[in-house]
Amino acid sequence: MIDKAQLQQQIAAAAREVRGTNPMAGSITNAVTINFVANAQIAVGGSAAMVYLPDEGEFLAGAGGATYINVGTLFPIYKETLPRTARTLHEAGKPWVLDPVAIGIGEMRTDLLAQFKEFKPTIIRGNASEVIALANLWGLEGDGGASQVRGVDSTQAVDEARAAAVALARYTGGAVAVSGETDLVTDGEVVCYSRGGSHFMAKITGSGCSLGGVCAVYAACAETPLAAAMAGVQVYNLAGSRAEAKVDAPGSFQVAFIDELYKATPEDIAANPFEIEEA
Amino acid sequence: MIDKAQLQQQIAAAAREVRGTNPMAGSITNAVTINFVANAQIAVGGSAAMVYLPDEGEFLAGAGGATYINVGTLFPIYKETLPRTARTLHEAGKPWVLDPVAIGIGEMRTDLLAQFKEFKPTIIRGNASEVIALANLWGLEGDGGASQVRGVDSTQAVDEARAAAVALARYTGGAVAVSGETDLVTDGEVVCYSRGGSHFMAKITGSGCSLGGVCAVYAACAETPLAAAMAGVQVYNLAGSRAEAKVDAPGSFQVAFIDELYKATPEDIAANPFEIEEA
Amino acid sequence: MIDKAQLQQQIAAAAREVRGTNPMAGSITNAVTINFVANAQIAVGGSAAMVYLPDEGEFLAGAGGATYINVGTLFPIYKETLPRTARTLHEAGKPWVLDPVAIGIGEMRTDLLAQFKEFKPTIIRGNASEVIALANLWGLEGDGGASQVRGVDSTQAVDEARAAAVALARYTGGAVAVSGETDLVTDGEVVCYSRGGSHFMAKITGSGCSLGGVCAVYAACAETPLAAAMAGVQVYNLAGSRAEAKVDAPGSFQVAFIDELYKATPEDIAANPFEIEEA
Repeated sequence: MIDKAQLQQQIAAAAREVRGTNPMAGSITNAVTINFVANAQIAVGGSAAMVYLPDEGEFLAGAGGATYINVGTLFPIYKETLPRTARTLHEAGKPWVLDPVAIGIGEMRTDLLAQFKEFKPTIIRGNASEVIALANLWGLEGDGGASQVRGVDSTQAVDEARAAAVALARYTGGAVAVSGETDLVTDGEVVCYSRGGSHFMAKITGSGCSLGGVCAVYAACAETPLAAAMAGVQVYNLAGSRAEAKVDAPGSFQVAFIDELYKATPEDIAANPFEIEEA
Repeated sequence: MIDKAQLQQQIAAAAREVRGTNPMAGSITNAVTINFVANAQIAVGGSAAMVYLPDEGEFLAGAGGATYINVGTLFPIYKETLPRTARTLHEAGKPWVLDPVAIGIGEMRTDLLAQFKEFKPTIIRGNASEVIALANLWGLEGDGGASQVRGVDSTQAVDEARAAAVALARYTGGAVAVSGETDLVTDGEVVCYSRGGSHFMAKITGSGCSLGGVCAVYAACAETPLAAAMAGVQVYNLAGSRAEAKVDAPGSFQVAFIDELYKATPEDIAANPFEIEEA
Repeated sequence: MIDKAQLQQQIAAAAREVRGTNPMAGSITNAVTINFVANAQIAVGGSAAMVYLPDEGEFLAGAGGATYINVGTLFPIYKETLPRTARTLHEAGKPWVLDPVAIGIGEMRTDLLAQFKEFKPTIIRGNASEVIALANLWGLEGDGGASQVRGVDSTQAVDEARAAAVALARYTGGAVAVSGETDLVTDGEVVCYSRGGSHFMAKITGSGCSLGGVCAVYAACAETPLAAAMAGVQVYNLAGSRAEAKVDAPGSFQVAFIDELYKATPEDIAANPFEIEEA
């Protein structure tokens, strides 16, 4: 089992590598927050590219260091684009991040998310209910860690999805990040609880979507999916805390948050408070 | 006829209810300002969700407290999505807000707006020329209040649409908000003139679109369409005035405006200067 | 050959005319930065409108003073929309700006960009590699000015595209703007090097896209394509420098940059440092 110091080293290494190599992480993502996703990816040191068409998705899958697929605001063409892109990623062994946003709404979304089971996303990022719904859709029992659910208020919401997250991670062989007041990240072997962030992150649109995009940037460089997901979650919690300290309303918060993503050093990201335990 | 004090109570009540219950108002809205619409809806206390596909529009219509339809940047699929969504809303008796933006451009837009006559939007929000064009498209004569058009400079633009707005409100049984330097809001029985705002609101994209989205949030909770439309218009005029006092250019204005939407209290919103008179 | 003082007069005249007449420049542009494009166009004094459908593109082509076509995030319908819009513009002799973003990715993008050769964009705006790739796609030899490539570090990147830019400008009879640390603008007769800007312009998404949109606004009023392209490039370099002096991170930079676009006077824009030489 990886220990905290090792994981911190991997997080810092991923963040440093991203700053040094400016990896491209292509995205097929929703229209509401597409600009925020791109700016967040650039702020942490990555490079962004967004497409809609099938052959362009396949191209980005091949060209990028990692890819982000977010199923918000689906277009009809996604029926072709998303499976072809995910298949390309899976067959090439390239890391990709799935955000199953709004799972349960609409027939196409359900169909697409069901198909993704075969293509095993490297990182799944969602809130507790989305992660539980995805595990159910994929028929994963979610027995891993259910008995260890903790009663702590601040982690209760994400802990309801702990078993589902662990089951998903064990199935994919990757990592799962559950967003909440405290964030839960697991690779099926360990479960991490990352602290920080801001209540303003729920007062703007796109905190979750852009975190998914940033996890993809780190996935292009990180040693493991867990390190990539934790690098993303940690820089979000760090930047959220720092931005909140400077503002009193959500418009200013969003600006300050991008600023703090840009300013966060690899060491700061690794040092943001988190706990690690056996899954 | 409702008097000013009663309307102010309803405005404050709607704003308070929104802060307390965080109602979801789904949107099918244009790509240019979709992020601003969502952030404005969240800033006043609501919750946002955006879709493009027909069954997803129907789902949001059923799940949300109200729905916002803005016909900017039409996609081909809207030919199915918008009528099916509007029909669902109408048949379920759910409030919805229509922004007939750019009425007159393109065949699909005209077809869709013509179809919406049957589905009677609860609130129509547009500028003077859009409101006049919609009344014409729907064959409404616009005789209500035409004789009362006032010569006051600051309201002249919106007053040109007074008759059309009153006719539309009488037809739908809902409310119509006409945006201008002074804003006109009517339910066909009374006409209100709400003051404030900022010249910077014309120097950023999306002031009007996001006002429509915010009116939908209030429509999920308000006692009447008039109270919902006035709550939206009043919080926009209040936040616009306050934001303008703090900045000297439009980039900063947009940030400060979202901040002020978030900070506005129900009492402040109700107390923003407005006049009320018989339609 | 136009001299510097004449060009400065034309730049100032274009900027003054835009402030005075608020020309509408319609756009068909990518989803990532569509909001930034609109806000930048408005900030410099223009008016924005975005569409996706073929007949709406044709309408905007006819109604606007100029049009902006950016081939990022292509939708399937663009197969019809973009050629029909470009044809309308060409046949009407209306100025239009092409941003060949991501040239080389995907079959549709290549097809569309190849078709545009016939419709001769008034201004082409891209980075060095995009401009070179477009000249290659159009079979232009790029012999103009190749022998004059300079070894100056700060202009090296754009100078690699000098021959291609000159060849494109001579073919279209318009202007080409190559974005880099120093920007190169040519009409095939002269080559201008515009200085300023900020390293933060590469740390946000949309600097290039929105510059294309702003060039379209100026193209609606300028005496020549060169003056329009230079007005856009100069206001970007000016606003970028000024914004950078006020901030230390990219979130704040984007806000300050829009503010400075708004504040820039025609005289300031013309006076931003640039050099002019024979092509």
